[in-house]
Amino acid sequence: MGKIICVGLGPGDPDLMSVKADRLVRSAANVAYFRKAGRAGQARRIVDGMLAENVTEYPMEYPVTTELPFDSPDYNALLAAFYDDWAGRLATIAATRDVVVLCEGDPFFYGSFMHLQTRLQGRAEVEVIPGITGMTGCWHASGTPITWGDDVLSVLMGTLSEADLVRHMQAADALVVMKTGRNLPKVRRALAAAGRLQDAWLVERGTMPGQRVARLDAVEAADCPYFAIVLVHGHGRRPEAME
Amino acid sequence: MGKIICVGLGPGDPDLMSVKADRLVRSAANVAYFRKAGRAGQARRIVDGMLAENVTEYPMEYPVTTELPFDSPDYNALLAAFYDDWAGRLATIAATRDVVVLCEGDPFFYGSFMHLQTRLQGRAEVEVIPGITGMTGCWHASGTPITWGDDVLSVLMGTLSEADLVRHMQAADALVVMKTGRNLPKVRRALAAAGRLQDAWLVERGTMPGQRVARLDAVEAADCPYFAIVLVHGHGRRPEAME
Repeated sequence: MGKIICVGLGPGDPDLMSVKADRLVRSAANVAYFRKAGRAGQARRIVDGMLAENVTEYPMEYPVTTELPFDSPDYNALLAAFYDDWAGRLATIAATRDVVVLCEGDPFFYGSFMHLQTRLQGRAEVEVIPGITGMTGCWHASGTPITWGDDVLSVLMGTLSEADLVRHMQAADALVVMKTGRNLPKVRRALAAAGRLQDAWLVERGTMPGQRVARLDAVEAADCPYFAIVLVHGHGRRPEAME
Repeated sequence: MGKIICVGLGPGDPDLMSVKADRLVRSAANVAYFRKAGRAGQARRIVDGMLAENVTEYPMEYPVTTELPFDSPDYNALLAAFYDDWAGRLATIAATRDVVVLCEGDPFFYGSFMHLQTRLQGRAEVEVIPGITGMTGCWHASGTPITWGDDVLSVLMGTLSEADLVRHMQAADALVVMKTGRNLPKVRRALAAAGRLQDAWLVERGTMPGQRVARLDAVEAADCPYFAIVLVHGHGRRPEAME
């Protein structure tokens, strides 16, 4: 009897993987990871040079990523079948041996593994190892703390409606916006409407080679990197010298 | 010339420290850490058994924690003087040798080190290493993902007013409430007013020995652990079998 161990790899720099994740990745005989068809995959790239020589790899290729609207029935049906299929395959592997599922960031924070985990209940032993979230890597790339004192932090997806984005951007002190990509023009308009655009930063490949940190209002409108995160730092209470 | 290296230790389990943090902690000749006077200190406890035998330790003892209201001038003056003092002492150490500052969780997420960092600008070289946040450890302790799909996550401090808490609790899908302790009765009332109390969990010492996960509405009103975090999990979009 084996088990399925989902390992959070952190934001990208292999040195920021946990001691436990590092040990599990290096000793794995079987690894699985999500990727877009035809791509190396970000999770697989993070562990480059770390895998055992005789490891068996199971790339789990999404049948669709951004080709269909995420709220269409076809998108839902394709992804549901994909997760059903891989849950079955992983359960079969785990019947006789351990398999490590490699996931970027933290698996319990907007991760894809959760869709496998719900399908694996009662079918295989599953363990999930936390990781540093991608957003944490991005605020470290910016060199500035994201929150102080009583700051309210809201994490928003660029897929939300513009009106919802504006409402949440006005209500919180610090902001993280994920899933930007083609939503970036909408995110930018929402930040401007909420009066936050001048404080927004675009962070791409935080903690990784080619890391880029730029003021969002200075980024070309046509420049919509897929893996970028938008940050607005909080400026909460802090003990300062009394006047 | 040395430098000041602030190391995020993660949520508590030493195995969840990053590979980089683990290496820096084990090889440090000088370590500093915050603690309440008379206590061992949580950061120091996490590295128990990891420090070099001849390490020099600098406990930085808060002059005040919860004895004074955090918004009083005395509280502010005492803490400002404390941070001024330790920024000076660390800069003096770093003039000749490296010193590692041990911090729980992630230093850029509501951390105390930021108050030293602002005071050290131009006076010493400072490097900050990310860690897994305490809240990440807590949602892993709960065994359930915190966010799915387009969920909005808001991170709130229990020190906010009840009206502000209610407003944010109504607006977000997933919630993390930190700095609970004596604010827990207020947090509980706010969750009830926002219609979220029945979905709230109290997580204490997530990933650490003695970890405790309980439904908040089943916890005695007088039971206000200081290091607990309250969670409400999101239930966002997920691809499910079509009916």
